[in-house]
Amino acid sequence: MPDRATLASVAARAGVSRQTVSNVLNSPHVVNESTRDRVAAAIAELGYRPLRAAQRLRSQRSRTLALALTPRSASADGVNGSIGDRFLHALTETAQRRGYRIMLFAAAGDAAEIGQYHDLLSTGDVDGFVLANTHHGDARTRWLTEHGTPFVTFGRPWGAPTDPHAWVDVDGASGTEAAVDHLVARGHRRIAFLGWPSGSGVGDDRRTGWRRAVQRHALVPAASVDAWSAAIPDNGRLASRAARELAADGASAVVCASDSLAIGALAAARETTDGLAVVGFDDTPTAAALGLTSIAQPLEAAASCAVDLVLGALEPAEAAAPAPSSEQVLLAPRLMVRGSTTTPITTH
Amino acid sequence: MPDRATLASVAARAGVSRQTVSNVLNSPHVVNESTRDRVAAAIAELGYRPLRAAQRLRSQRSRTLALALTPRSASADGVNGSIGDRFLHALTETAQRRGYRIMLFAAAGDAAEIGQYHDLLSTGDVDGFVLANTHHGDARTRWLTEHGTPFVTFGRPWGAPTDPHAWVDVDGASGTEAAVDHLVARGHRRIAFLGWPSGSGVGDDRRTGWRRAVQRHALVPAASVDAWSAAIPDNGRLASRAARELAADGASAVVCASDSLAIGALAAARETTDGLAVVGFDDTPTAAALGLTSIAQPLEAAASCAVDLVLGALEPAEAAAPAPSSEQVLLAPRLMVRGSTTTPITTH
Repeated sequence: MPDRATLASVAARAGVSRQTVSNVLNSPHVVNESTRDRVAAAIAELGYRPLRAAQRLRSQRSRTLALALTPRSASADGVNGSIGDRFLHALTETAQRRGYRIMLFAAAGDAAEIGQYHDLLSTGDVDGFVLANTHHGDARTRWLTEHGTPFVTFGRPWGAPTDPHAWVDVDGASGTEAAVDHLVARGHRRIAFLGWPSGSGVGDDRRTGWRRAVQRHALVPAASVDAWSAAIPDNGRLASRAARELAADGASAVVCASDSLAIGALAAARETTDGLAVVGFDDTPTAAALGLTSIAQPLEAAASCAVDLVLGALEPAEAAAPAPSSEQVLLAPRLMVRGSTTTPITTH
Repeated sequence: MPDRATLASVAARAGVSRQTVSNVLNSPHVVNESTRDRVAAAIAELGYRPLRAAQRLRSQRSRTLALALTPRSASADGVNGSIGDRFLHALTETAQRRGYRIMLFAAAGDAAEIGQYHDLLSTGDVDGFVLANTHHGDARTRWLTEHGTPFVTFGRPWGAPTDPHAWVDVDGASGTEAAVDHLVARGHRRIAFLGWPSGSGVGDDRRTGWRRAVQRHALVPAASVDAWSAAIPDNGRLASRAARELAADGASAVVCASDSLAIGALAAARETTDGLAVVGFDDTPTAAALGLTSIAQPLEAAASCAVDLVLGALEPAEAAAPAPSSEQVLLAPRLMVRGSTTTPITTH
């Protein structure tokens, strides 16, 4: 590395004034492209780097939000894993429009994630956090709240509904309710639910909406419907078996807690003589590819809302967009109707 | 915000020595967890932040690598989009083990991405770049090479094979060759290829391997096979139609350039009386869910290699792992055999 580069040496190399170099660094949009290119080239050649670091010393702001990626192996559900990634894409784009970057780190479990908070905060690398995958007894939100760190969660504080922190989530129950309404409108009267073992906030929420709609339409008694709620892991083979049993038990349609479960149910549907309508959840690429009716989460809106909420906490005065009127935002999902519920069925 | 926090005020608030605070910041692993927790709490309470910024002024190193996310809408292929995300997960984990973070930014197209390079480099936020989606006439690699910026690409410099930059890629041609070998071993003699319009580096590479193996096994003349190479966009309906025509033309198996195409082909396979074996590419969650034989990319190895290569350029002296012996690494993919090629077929 040559001698330490300075603003002056960069300006000399680029053949511009020091003010122009400063403009490139602080207000790049006032400098024309070719000059910006020349200054950037000089900066790269000379290894001039401490600029944002110096700015940070003044502003104490990194303009960076951090998000943990959980190991893929920890997620049993590759199909639905695409949801987290779509949220990440939307988050990166929204944050960038507001002048923020997304920093990723890897953490398997609450304790590991909190360990990373230490490092990221103590080094001033990030201004705030976006958390996904909230769950019962979430130790991360408690830690961040206690330490006064700005953060927002994508997901409700399951089991701790009075937690005052900022969150945005999608109303899964209203999605499964809409699915039942759609099936009833198409003549179905025995509508089952294929879900996860109870205890997961997301899964229980989705089951709740199905139950609510089944009762509202005065369909089969809730008791017998409850027996149909298969508590199985997201496993295509088990989902197929459960769907086959539900069909044998008289169900003409099944609402599933995920597209993964729905794929298993679709395999069972192909074998039934009377047909079985299937609705998935999350509108994954797989659902689109298979013609599976599914419930879509408004992930772009959720990401935008998450950025608004965390920036509202970070910089209330200079926030570019008005902060949401509430710090707790529940968004409505949307039913994407496809062939798996619109091909003619035999009414029971 | 209170008065500007200092190392001393943090130490006082946490009830530890200044050396301990310094240790938490620079060698957190030598400090026990409860002390680290106390110091981190004091740092958060007092808003003490300029630490890594100060370190950066000394080291001129951000220990951050940047990667562009392209908008989802720009990718026609939602099913295969999961590949980029699996690579991103692996990259984040590998980089973190080497003490680096991944910074995301959004860019649609080469020009926009290069515009972001300006900003990221001029502010010293990143040390190097990881690029995905290399393509013919890639303006990004030329820019980075000309500006002397450390980078690595996941993908070969298509159309410019003598470009000297560091890259890691997966040998798609060897994957489709292995798929043909597998199909031949199962008795197939007329094996078609369902691909993308020629011109994409990745698509042409996958087609090349199929053609090579078809010739090696002295199967049907290449000329008639060429006519089977359907030049269609990734669209299930079109892929189904093409696969139906291939089957009508006597093909008993089809190797596809992507799982998306293969899903379309599977739909056609279900309608044929003689059966049609189908192989996809990328081993997506959808392939696993549908029992589709597919070619898996070693994404964890690719990510690890990418990190080694870019860190080798960044810090040759202090690199923790030995740098790969070459700056151009081609990894072998692996055929994942499932039911779509192992259910009995009629030999033609």
